[in-house]
Amino acid sequence: MRTHQLVMQWIEDQLSGGQLAVGGRLPAERSLAEQLGVSRTSVREAIRILEAMGVVRAGVGSGPEAGTVVISDPTAALGSALRLHVATQHLPVSDVVETRVLLESWAAARAKPDAPELLHASELLDDMDSAGPGVDEFLALDVRFHIALADAAGNAVVSAMMGSLREAIQGYAAKLTANLPDWDATAARLRSEHREILEAIRNGDGGRAAELVAAHIEGYYKESGLGRGHG
Amino acid sequence: MRTHQLVMQWIEDQLSGGQLAVGGRLPAERSLAEQLGVSRTSVREAIRILEAMGVVRAGVGSGPEAGTVVISDPTAALGSALRLHVATQHLPVSDVVETRVLLESWAAARAKPDAPELLHASELLDDMDSAGPGVDEFLALDVRFHIALADAAGNAVVSAMMGSLREAIQGYAAKLTANLPDWDATAARLRSEHREILEAIRNGDGGRAAELVAAHIEGYYKESGLGRGHG
Repeated sequence: MRTHQLVMQWIEDQLSGGQLAVGGRLPAERSLAEQLGVSRTSVREAIRILEAMGVVRAGVGSGPEAGTVVISDPTAALGSALRLHVATQHLPVSDVVETRVLLESWAAARAKPDAPELLHASELLDDMDSAGPGVDEFLALDVRFHIALADAAGNAVVSAMMGSLREAIQGYAAKLTANLPDWDATAARLRSEHREILEAIRNGDGGRAAELVAAHIEGYYKESGLGRGHG
Repeated sequence: MRTHQLVMQWIEDQLSGGQLAVGGRLPAERSLAEQLGVSRTSVREAIRILEAMGVVRAGVGSGPEAGTVVISDPTAALGSALRLHVATQHLPVSDVVETRVLLESWAAARAKPDAPELLHASELLDDMDSAGPGVDEFLALDVRFHIALADAAGNAVVSAMMGSLREAIQGYAAKLTANLPDWDATAARLRSEHREILEAIRNGDGGRAAELVAAHIEGYYKESGLGRGHG
């Protein structure tokens, strides 16, 4: 095991053992290096990796707010790893889309009609109605709406994976959305599909909600030329 | 953007643009640092992160085999990130198990009866029959059997995610397996369940294969005390 891996192992053990928890701080770089008998460079490398994995936020400056804090942001971290593997073409975009359909239709079928996340989802739809004509603002709200639906199913792993898939192909999606023949028409369609999905969940019709979500995602990628076989 | 992120962005762009592909080599640390106008430390930090993400294998020594090579191993990388988030307790083990059931039952339902990966899966079952009484060897073969089934569905993202979930809770599973009241009985049951799942897929009965996989995974975690609600 290389020295930076030794530092990572120590931190993982501290997390598993409960000595370190979300919101807690790592020892200062120098003291951690001394304690583990490794170089400060190795400690810094380990922290950079943990930062990229969404496990810590590296501190800057000094004072009570300084230091490296334990966080938990698996979505962004898994998303950037997946994005890199999509870039190497090891993970085809069409497989990413298919997996999104799988996870999101499962979540729609599982979401409780009275889940508090659905209120948030509903507010996001209102925001989308009053959003300007820009694609970026629409897509940002769209991501948050889909994540709110996934959250309503109550499985943190599915939510993190679903968010990371979205993150992984965000660049592609934005590029292709810009090429759509008629963005206004597409946006209007997406808006009404969102309302239908939310309504099906609220009516306790998980089966229909799942079908609607699948058609919604597949339809979008098909229209933007990112459908199965084009990845 | 910090300097090591600048290096990562450059590498991602090279991958997306096709100038760099799996099997290719990164420029030497020194020349990359000069080219991008950053320190060698920043280059090394970026490489460590990419290594942790399964995107490169860092080189050692000199000569034609030296240098940092582009690889694609999303499974291990996603697995270690997920494992850390399970350690922070942000991702409950019960949610990991539920997601395994979701992905693996989907894959079992989708696997083609004549997929070549099923031959490999069958060989692994023979290996498990002739394996010694040790838990570790059994579990290692068990992981490979489940991954072969997932691969037979032909979605690289689902395979990577499924493998990473398994990796994320490997430590827990091994610990709890050791506590099982009667490992030999459990192993015998798992063996026969594996045969049934494979047979259902080969008979083209995806629905039954999916049900059997779900019951197989849930039963195992229930028996080892890792079921829903115990995470």
